[in-house]
Amino acid sequence: MKTMVVISHPTIQTSSSQQFFLATLKGEEAITIRYMDEVWSERKPHFTRATEEKALLESGTKRLILQFPMYWYQAPAVMKEWIDTVMSKSAPFAKQIKELGIVVTLGVKEEAFRAGGKEQFTISELMRPFQALANAMGWKYLPIFEVHQFDYKTEEAKQALLVEYLQYVTKEHHGTLKNAEDWFIERAQSMKGAEWEQIAEWIKENQDERMELEMHLSAWEESQYGDY
Amino acid sequence: MKTMVVISHPTIQTSSSQQFFLATLKGEEAITIRYMDEVWSERKPHFTRATEEKALLESGTKRLILQFPMYWYQAPAVMKEWIDTVMSKSAPFAKQIKELGIVVTLGVKEEAFRAGGKEQFTISELMRPFQALANAMGWKYLPIFEVHQFDYKTEEAKQALLVEYLQYVTKEHHGTLKNAEDWFIERAQSMKGAEWEQIAEWIKENQDERMELEMHLSAWEESQYGDY
Repeated sequence: MKTMVVISHPTIQTSSSQQFFLATLKGEEAITIRYMDEVWSERKPHFTRATEEKALLESGTKRLILQFPMYWYQAPAVMKEWIDTVMSKSAPFAKQIKELGIVVTLGVKEEAFRAGGKEQFTISELMRPFQALANAMGWKYLPIFEVHQFDYKTEEAKQALLVEYLQYVTKEHHGTLKNAEDWFIERAQSMKGAEWEQIAEWIKENQDERMELEMHLSAWEESQYGDY
Repeated sequence: MKTMVVISHPTIQTSSSQQFFLATLKGEEAITIRYMDEVWSERKPHFTRATEEKALLESGTKRLILQFPMYWYQAPAVMKEWIDTVMSKSAPFAKQIKELGIVVTLGVKEEAFRAGGKEQFTISELMRPFQALANAMGWKYLPIFEVHQFDYKTEEAKQALLVEYLQYVTKEHHGTLKNAEDWFIERAQSMKGAEWEQIAEWIKENQDERMELEMHLSAWEESQYGDY
């Protein structure tokens, strides 16, 4: 799926999480990166609506991802300015785009964001304006991709995050296990080397077996309760 | 209570609601108006932290009101930039300020903002980031002052809005009827003319009578159920 990742971060060069994400997406042909704080011009208008519209159209973007650090429970001002400048229900990209995803990095622990926790509200609650935006534009709102305290993560946790992030940006979001397996198979098949071939095959076999079991189980359930 | 009203609106001169609010606050000595899009400078940094801190301190602000039109379910970018530049838990104004209020103008009908309505979410939900900000700064969060479709309001509705707005900005927010009456009495007493004197007296008499009734009722309830 053609995806544009719009990034707003005042110091992207020294941000370890943003550099990590950029490295993860390197070479992905279906992905266009648009780094706001670079596109932003010193003089008003900081963004040109026509330029941004063109970028969205020419990239064929179907999934729009807004990626930013959370500042005072919202996106940075530059990201908001981009939204204020570009968004329009009647723009040609409005119908082309189908999904909106949010990648948000946070310096605060995950457990702080809940009723009774230090920050009182969940990230889903704090990002509600983006959900409302997706609703207004007629786009599907993807579950938020939250990254808490990236710098404190172990190497192992970062490796897991890399796969999850790549899936978030590039995978179809059907939320089924089959869908995740298919994504892994496709990825493994596109890699060079016998070991990747083996991995793809192994996932495929596993998947076939599971689906056969599911079919039997479903037939048995029907015989017990009828088809409901 | 010393109050600062921080306004962000790209075209304040031609905004009928903003002009209406400015006229309402004219001559109020306890109120400082800070119009963001005027303070904002063309060159970076658009806001100077030191200047904004000084303005907050020297005005003795105890109640901070952020006033803006809702753009894409959030404050305009300039308001966010002010927050990003100025907010700090360790700033001297952090302890001086006690309350945070939000005045938000909207072009959409009130009934659209609810589950199942066109916009799906309430204004309280969409403004959650400001509630989280108040929580982080240790400030009391006032109920949001929502103004829907100002231009469609009748003259009568606008007059009522004027009083409500003035109360929102200047009145203590204890939420009791007595508190509202006291505010009206004080206002009426400060006006010149026999008719205002009479109004103040009338509210006072009404208040006395009500409080006496309340006392009797409370005594009767205690005699019935005990003091609980």
